[in-house]
Amino acid sequence: MIVVMRSDCKDQDVEAVLQRIQEAGLSGHLSRGEERTVIGVVGQVFPELRGMLETLPGVDEVVRISRPFKLSGREFHPDDTVIEVGGVRIGDGNVVVMAGPCSVESEEQTLTTARAVKAAGAQILRGGAFKPRTSPYTFRGLGVEGLKILAKAREETGLPVITELMSIQDLEVVLEYADIIQLGARNMQNFTLLDEMGKVNKPVMLKRGLSATVEEWLLAAEYILSQGNHNVILCERGIRTYETYTRNTMDVSAIPLVKRLSHLPVIGDPSHGTGKWYLVAPLAAAAVAAGADGLMVEVHPNPDHALSDGAQSLTPENFGVLMQRARAIAEATGRGISPQPAAAASR
Amino acid sequence: MIVVMRSDCKDQDVEAVLQRIQEAGLSGHLSRGEERTVIGVVGQVFPELRGMLETLPGVDEVVRISRPFKLSGREFHPDDTVIEVGGVRIGDGNVVVMAGPCSVESEEQTLTTARAVKAAGAQILRGGAFKPRTSPYTFRGLGVEGLKILAKAREETGLPVITELMSIQDLEVVLEYADIIQLGARNMQNFTLLDEMGKVNKPVMLKRGLSATVEEWLLAAEYILSQGNHNVILCERGIRTYETYTRNTMDVSAIPLVKRLSHLPVIGDPSHGTGKWYLVAPLAAAAVAAGADGLMVEVHPNPDHALSDGAQSLTPENFGVLMQRARAIAEATGRGISPQPAAAASR
Amino acid sequence: MIVVMRSDCKDQDVEAVLQRIQEAGLSGHLSRGEERTVIGVVGQVFPELRGMLETLPGVDEVVRISRPFKLSGREFHPDDTVIEVGGVRIGDGNVVVMAGPCSVESEEQTLTTARAVKAAGAQILRGGAFKPRTSPYTFRGLGVEGLKILAKAREETGLPVITELMSIQDLEVVLEYADIIQLGARNMQNFTLLDEMGKVNKPVMLKRGLSATVEEWLLAAEYILSQGNHNVILCERGIRTYETYTRNTMDVSAIPLVKRLSHLPVIGDPSHGTGKWYLVAPLAAAAVAAGADGLMVEVHPNPDHALSDGAQSLTPENFGVLMQRARAIAEATGRGISPQPAAAASR
Amino acid sequence: MIVVMRSDCKDQDVEAVLQRIQEAGLSGHLSRGEERTVIGVVGQVFPELRGMLETLPGVDEVVRISRPFKLSGREFHPDDTVIEVGGVRIGDGNVVVMAGPCSVESEEQTLTTARAVKAAGAQILRGGAFKPRTSPYTFRGLGVEGLKILAKAREETGLPVITELMSIQDLEVVLEYADIIQLGARNMQNFTLLDEMGKVNKPVMLKRGLSATVEEWLLAAEYILSQGNHNVILCERGIRTYETYTRNTMDVSAIPLVKRLSHLPVIGDPSHGTGKWYLVAPLAAAAVAAGADGLMVEVHPNPDHALSDGAQSLTPENFGVLMQRARAIAEATGRGISPQPAAAASR
Repeated sequence: MIVVMRSDCKDQDVEAVLQRIQEAGLSGHLSRGEERTVIGVVGQVFPELRGMLETLPGVDEVVRISRPFKLSGREFHPDDTVIEVGGVRIGDGNVVVMAGPCSVESEEQTLTTARAVKAAGAQILRGGAFKPRTSPYTFRGLGVEGLKILAKAREETGLPVITELMSIQDLEVVLEYADIIQLGARNMQNFTLLDEMGKVNKPVMLKRGLSATVEEWLLAAEYILSQGNHNVILCERGIRTYETYTRNTMDVSAIPLVKRLSHLPVIGDPSHGTGKWYLVAPLAAAAVAAGADGLMVEVHPNPDHALSDGAQSLTPENFGVLMQRARAIAEATGRGISPQPAAAASR
Repeated sequence: MIVVMRSDCKDQDVEAVLQRIQEAGLSGHLSRGEERTVIGVVGQVFPELRGMLETLPGVDEVVRISRPFKLSGREFHPDDTVIEVGGVRIGDGNVVVMAGPCSVESEEQTLTTARAVKAAGAQILRGGAFKPRTSPYTFRGLGVEGLKILAKAREETGLPVITELMSIQDLEVVLEYADIIQLGARNMQNFTLLDEMGKVNKPVMLKRGLSATVEEWLLAAEYILSQGNHNVILCERGIRTYETYTRNTMDVSAIPLVKRLSHLPVIGDPSHGTGKWYLVAPLAAAAVAAGADGLMVEVHPNPDHALSDGAQSLTPENFGVLMQRARAIAEATGRGISPQPAAAASR
Repeated sequence: MIVVMRSDCKDQDVEAVLQRIQEAGLSGHLSRGEERTVIGVVGQVFPELRGMLETLPGVDEVVRISRPFKLSGREFHPDDTVIEVGGVRIGDGNVVVMAGPCSVESEEQTLTTARAVKAAGAQILRGGAFKPRTSPYTFRGLGVEGLKILAKAREETGLPVITELMSIQDLEVVLEYADIIQLGARNMQNFTLLDEMGKVNKPVMLKRGLSATVEEWLLAAEYILSQGNHNVILCERGIRTYETYTRNTMDVSAIPLVKRLSHLPVIGDPSHGTGKWYLVAPLAAAAVAAGADGLMVEVHPNPDHALSDGAQSLTPENFGVLMQRARAIAEATGRGISPQPAAAASR
Repeated sequence: MIVVMRSDCKDQDVEAVLQRIQEAGLSGHLSRGEERTVIGVVGQVFPELRGMLETLPGVDEVVRISRPFKLSGREFHPDDTVIEVGGVRIGDGNVVVMAGPCSVESEEQTLTTARAVKAAGAQILRGGAFKPRTSPYTFRGLGVEGLKILAKAREETGLPVITELMSIQDLEVVLEYADIIQLGARNMQNFTLLDEMGKVNKPVMLKRGLSATVEEWLLAAEYILSQGNHNVILCERGIRTYETYTRNTMDVSAIPLVKRLSHLPVIGDPSHGTGKWYLVAPLAAAAVAAGADGLMVEVHPNPDHALSDGAQSLTPENFGVLMQRARAIAEATGRGISPQPAAAASR
């Protein structure tokens, strides 16, 4: 931590900063330069110190010099994390595709979709049973019944299932049915859920918050890792900007950036990232080209009847086209689409 | 709801839209203009229809024409909501001041602060026992012990207490000690918590999410109102923008805007809104001038020792200056600072 | 400037940074801490160095420790700049009000408005003759004819005139008619215009760019100041955010922040800041409460016939109400509305 | 245009809106629905009408139903625009690569870079002679001397040259030397320059403004097109968001979106889009995968000595790697890298 003093600060201001640092059990290293006087803090710095020092007279700003994410960062964990679930490896260089309906609406809709995405080459089935919705007056999911339908679809197709957990109250039942637990963008900083996710023995996919910085996102992952669960997958799903043509602005650059900063696998979600079905395939291609470890895509047999996210759902046909393009791009960059799980092959 | 067709749409596209509308039990009203062909949807429109229609060929966009917030909106509830708690009226035209430490750190720190804010004229004591923190490695609050300290401070000062609830697991204990329950910005779309807040018999203060639109904020309030709790207070606490000098950008315009759209009281939080102690008083003044029903301000006896939010905490002295300015501005606009509760006066 | 090395950097990386610094005629001061190795750059640092050093292996980030705005900053110029124009003092503690139509549309419209704003207490007349418009198909102003109408209005009312300059081609004619030259938000980084504004002998009002940081804004002012024109007024007019209810988000906190960082006067423009006529008066009040040196407000005799910015224009009646509120708030904070120029009084 | 009335509007409000529409020479078509009363405006609507109607009592909002960009839109110009310059075709399906130094710093630096980018397969040489810089204290380009160096590099390599025009004063000399004129992000709404660009007989590349919406960007192109120059190239170069790890957030989704809305070619600039050299290649790959018609990339023989944008400049070696990846991805999507101009081949 470095304290930058104002150029008009007084000697007693500098003295007071040094004293406050000492009082905290650390030592200050003073350096008077042509530009400014700066004080380096030496010792085991604790994060709260920054706000404390910023309140002192004569201080211009306090600059942090270490990355606050220790377990999710690559500095002390240079090798990529590879997560295995239901016979699928996530983060091993190949591209894993998670696809399925936004919401589980019925057994027929879910099974139809599951068969279609399996046929097109997906490895994992997605589907929402508990749905976070902006308005209380919209469809909020089938709940446990939805989880059972997902399990049936897994049974039939052999594809492992990823589904969202919204509340600690549903933890047990979601753990019973899900292979991967998804934390949605609105819950990225639900610290109670994050703590609990650190204690379960299933992989967790953590979506980036609507306006989360990359650092906040990695710190949210840090909550889970620091409780002992190391199987965390990150998912870029678009951030909020001033642009209104698209639902969100998919931050494709976050994919290679996070892969540089962290060892965790990163998935791209072009469905939420764009909110428009006709932009999903190009952005899926972009995510793969930028190095994503996988894709999450919403598919619905009849988007014009979807109870949620119709505008961004692909028909099975369009999903097939997306898969071909994703495969070609993965191969162009020396990678491939992940093999489907053996369980799927045997059915 | 109005469907705007592309100018190069085909007759069969228009036909398909009309059919889909009919299938939904509604009727479409076609209008071919010089600019575009538009189709008005007539009947009891449901919100999911928009995404469904947007997927049809030839559709350019689907425009919603009604406000989705019914109970929080002013259209069907023109009179201001006034909330009474512990002898304090919120939303009656006067300005209510909620002040206290960011975190409850100790009995002494809390009591010292409580006495100081009471002496300066505050009506309500704030203090965090459960703290949402970006990093898992920072101070996360004293929990139940913190609640007890707050209760003691209420006992001594007569000021009702507002404190944050982060998780449904803590609901019972927070209900036991708090007079007003605060939902923080990161939980504005924690729909499980929102649903529960609709069932409690205490007022709830709902902070605006970090990047929530005004509409999303009112829809979050709608969750609570639609479950039966009508005592909802809104709190503008700054939104996320590209500017980094301030912690957030306090959207002062949201205060008069929300008062126009909604009947609920609106509080301004210049501490989180700016993140810099030297901007708190000017923005508190601005919030009152713009019509806020109250202020929420962080005060700490020694900001350079605060375990959270030191940089934005006021000393008791600076808080006294803020109160004077707020009072002068309230009076200049024909209002006043709310009287302190009788319970406080008697101590 | 401080170079923060990655924790996994090699000795030769550190060596290379030190060498590059020396090659630039400066010296590096190495400090190996528990957190990180950092290198302080000692000597007359030049701004380009930052980008250069960031490219070297092992470097995590390069932190600037001095403020890049020297002439506009308060560090070396602690006293407020006060600007006199046509008998009006801007920045002396009182609140100056600039009001008038968005566009000069006709002599009658302009004179009617000028009389009304003078009667309500404004000191300066605003009006656009050259209009920057998002679409080429909208009204782009009367040009020189508009300037002549403004001069006529000044003649009759005694109010000095502020009007926008869009292009260097119009410099001479605008200089002939304007008392204050306005640079619009879209031209805040039109560096050619900024350079020219540094050479004219009239005050310049520099609006904050649509997404300019406070630092970029002060650096734009620096362009003008560094060419010799010290009469620069800053104007906060709202920034672009994700919120769409308002045209822009007026960053009220920028007013006290800039007054702390800089000695230049700061004006608030709630008309562009909000884009909705019903939010103009509350935000004008907020700007004054937060310490603005003045206001700029759009007024039109018939907003429903305004050729530009109708939705944010006040009627003369509503402007009168705004003036009363602004005056009351200015007085509540120990200030006042500026006196009108003597030239106005004598008419 | 559709006027949506408030649900509590009065009959006389509706009447007044209808009258105002008639007064404008248009007719209103009233429709009272269960949700709201709406009024469709029939006839040749002019854009200013929207703001006018929004000021009337009882009006909730006015919704535009036509796209305001006529000439740049695809609705009336379904076929892709292909632009030929110096033997290079832009927009014909293949990927054109423009590469070179951010600033022309010297003949040697420019020629070295030009040879390197030609050798790696680029078609067009980029280089800045007039540089827009945030601070007045940084290197602002060599001006005319820089243009002459670019011409020399073209002479030697056969690659056509793209360079930025910042001011109308430099128009003649830039026209003399440049093959494509670049308008930078900060000048996207410099309407004077846009008008002039409409009159020149050279292609113009229009970069997206720092916080421009896609609609504003197409309207800026509309300025040029409406003056008669149809050779406009669009360039996505990142937008401003709250994320600070990257210089800007490259909006990759804007590439396929603009290609859907418009017939103009779209280039991606990952150098400015990310601001970090190590993110340039992945985002270049993403842009090609998403359908970009080309790339613009900054290359410098010694990024740690670059007088501008060092941190985002590639070494020639890294540029070579980028080209290989871009080519593989272009081919994976059934396209290719454009052939180099014959003039280049013959040297």
